[in-house]
Amino acid sequence: MISRHRSIQLNRQDARTIAAFQASLRRDESGPLDWWQACRERIDLREPEVQAWEYLATSTPEPPSLVGGHSLCGVPVGLKDIIETRDMPTSWGTRGYLKTPGSLVDAALVALLDQQGALIMGKTVSTEMAFFTPGKTRNPHDLTHTPGGSSSGSAAAVADRMVPLAFGTQTAGSIIRPASYCGVFGFKPTFDLISLAGVKSFSPSLDTLGWFANHIEDISTTFTALTQARDIPVLEGLSGVRVGLRNLPGDVPPGSDTEQALVHAAECLEQAGAKVFPLPLDRRYDTLVEHQKIVMAYEAARTLASEYQMCGHSMGEKLIAQIEQGRATPYASYINSRQVTEELKQAITTVFAEDVDLILAASSMGAAPAGLDATGDPLYCRGWTLLGLPCLNLPLYHNGQGLPVGVQLVADRFQDERLLSIARGLMENV
Amino acid sequence: MISRHRSIQLNRQDARTIAAFQASLRRDESGPLDWWQACRERIDLREPEVQAWEYLATSTPEPPSLVGGHSLCGVPVGLKDIIETRDMPTSWGTRGYLKTPGSLVDAALVALLDQQGALIMGKTVSTEMAFFTPGKTRNPHDLTHTPGGSSSGSAAAVADRMVPLAFGTQTAGSIIRPASYCGVFGFKPTFDLISLAGVKSFSPSLDTLGWFANHIEDISTTFTALTQARDIPVLEGLSGVRVGLRNLPGDVPPGSDTEQALVHAAECLEQAGAKVFPLPLDRRYDTLVEHQKIVMAYEAARTLASEYQMCGHSMGEKLIAQIEQGRATPYASYINSRQVTEELKQAITTVFAEDVDLILAASSMGAAPAGLDATGDPLYCRGWTLLGLPCLNLPLYHNGQGLPVGVQLVADRFQDERLLSIARGLMENV
Repeated sequence: MISRHRSIQLNRQDARTIAAFQASLRRDESGPLDWWQACRERIDLREPEVQAWEYLATSTPEPPSLVGGHSLCGVPVGLKDIIETRDMPTSWGTRGYLKTPGSLVDAALVALLDQQGALIMGKTVSTEMAFFTPGKTRNPHDLTHTPGGSSSGSAAAVADRMVPLAFGTQTAGSIIRPASYCGVFGFKPTFDLISLAGVKSFSPSLDTLGWFANHIEDISTTFTALTQARDIPVLEGLSGVRVGLRNLPGDVPPGSDTEQALVHAAECLEQAGAKVFPLPLDRRYDTLVEHQKIVMAYEAARTLASEYQMCGHSMGEKLIAQIEQGRATPYASYINSRQVTEELKQAITTVFAEDVDLILAASSMGAAPAGLDATGDPLYCRGWTLLGLPCLNLPLYHNGQGLPVGVQLVADRFQDERLLSIARGLMENV
Repeated sequence: MISRHRSIQLNRQDARTIAAFQASLRRDESGPLDWWQACRERIDLREPEVQAWEYLATSTPEPPSLVGGHSLCGVPVGLKDIIETRDMPTSWGTRGYLKTPGSLVDAALVALLDQQGALIMGKTVSTEMAFFTPGKTRNPHDLTHTPGGSSSGSAAAVADRMVPLAFGTQTAGSIIRPASYCGVFGFKPTFDLISLAGVKSFSPSLDTLGWFANHIEDISTTFTALTQARDIPVLEGLSGVRVGLRNLPGDVPPGSDTEQALVHAAECLEQAGAKVFPLPLDRRYDTLVEHQKIVMAYEAARTLASEYQMCGHSMGEKLIAQIEQGRATPYASYINSRQVTEELKQAITTVFAEDVDLILAASSMGAAPAGLDATGDPLYCRGWTLLGLPCLNLPLYHNGQGLPVGVQLVADRFQDERLLSIARGLMENV
């Protein structure tokens, strides 16, 4: 077993932010391929152990143009293997039963990244079709533990400083959970905010594109680059910010590691000036976990109908069980779950308008479980995902074994900028 | 010019419903490829004039299994050319600048149709990327008039009895408008209800898959086949059904043809027992048209970023203008439109809960405009689409020139079954 401190050893180069690198490019202190080269060296060193990559670029890219104020110029990026690319293969975590050497068109995300000068390092390991069958990736903090899933490779690659930025998707807890387990920032924006064109669907009313980084500033820079929102300011002091503490579901106690992580996060928030208090949400919210499972299964059975017809004999048993469960789910049950969701989306908007700015909640049931045969439980993410709320994993705490345990900040839909601004303010004080 | 009566001449075979054909299969009065053959003959006869097809199947399919109670057994189906297929080319209405001889995986819809025994006749003409640049299709009621768009070929093929069922998508008014112009039923379900996996995205928070048929019963049969909802009953008598009359926007008067179509529809509804009355919706609803334009442009610019990067030089000027408009749309403006939409989604749910069962509204500004260089204005569809509401075009009226002019019935989200049940009850009385 490789210790945490050996496995994620930082150097000065690793610690830079995207904005700092852009500044060094403008000052001619760095070349546009410097970060790429440094990442390649890191990957050469670490990939045999971490195994974050499904595919790596076979050649050095053309240097991106320094003209035009691109905000991701020269930033090496990892893409979850369900995000299609023209010049790299995509295999959707299938280990080959479904694979293309290159798609006809890049995913929309790829063009948006290219416009900003980012450099695609390769495709990161996904679980099978972004469901629960694990890929090969290990947790860089302890190689015998899962990195979480389904965006396993993206979380691990960022945690291990192989790339400063990597993209994933969340349908249940596939960004926030691996971010928690790997000790990185993981951001799931408001549902439907970042185009999923060219990304394999699983459950269209849940699937959300998001990203991982080691700096909250980089999460924010990326948000601005993709949406053309204004630069998100650091909130100076969190005085007046109201943070409600509530896990979803609230009736399943998290492990002691997660309890400690929540206590620590609440302390950090209060030290930064925020007010943190228990948020009473009625018991209907706890039912969202079951509704999320119903929606996900029903939609997956239909959305993956062609893949199932074509490749069902090659699929892992977890995925088959999910699709069969969805096929057996009555339409009336699905519609009921969608309607309850709509009611609670409205209700939580009122909560955010009246009672709190953010919710602080568990990201995961504890640290990354030992073993590589499962990717952990997305329990504490399902409800927030169903509500379409933006969620940010904060990597503020490590347990007694040195494993990270995250917590998430949750905002109302379309309050992504406010969430990131508060989180930036918080991290200035940590 | 070919007259309406010559161009759409019915025979007994044309008039059958999907359910009637299934019954005749069970009684061994029809063979499973009979409808296919009849449609091929009709296409051979009419396609040179109507030009509804981008691609036609080159061989007769295997006869579908009669075992298993498939509800679309032997039903020939047209697919809009933005719906991907493995064994037929897709060109997304581009006239060839983007084209695949076959995709790696069928669209989810194709597998769901196959499971029900449907037979894919081919790909119907779409406008360019389902936006406004017209394809070659003509209106079968008058070949010098547009069939509407963007689902031009699907609406025209059904109207001309080339197939009993064809699929399209709506982002602004691309199902309801061509259904109105072509005189067929056109159904846009609740947003997000039918999986769009394998269908080209344009504006992900608006794009909705739907279908065209000549019988309301077939619209309903198809809904049940795709969702596994229960069979939708014919509502016996519309006594107690409250129908509110309101165009969106309400401040742009429709042409006299549409006025007449609305009066006629209201009379039909009242004769069937419903109560029809003007529905007062406040002026915020009228702003939805502009919000829809903002959302559509912002999202299209990002969703089609790769296509624009790759093929922008080949794109038509309308599509380029849309993408450039979206690139110039501020994020704050987009978010504002999304938030107004959420508020009005909540508000209209209250209206449906308290005041009306359905809304009766104009489908189009009048009959199909003359000329083939534009596809008409989706004005009266934009708002309902933005709200995600299920909409059904009713082909109840023809103007003085013999051209159809539709109206739409609109229900609250997830009330698709109720909408279809009432419409079935209405059509029993027409």
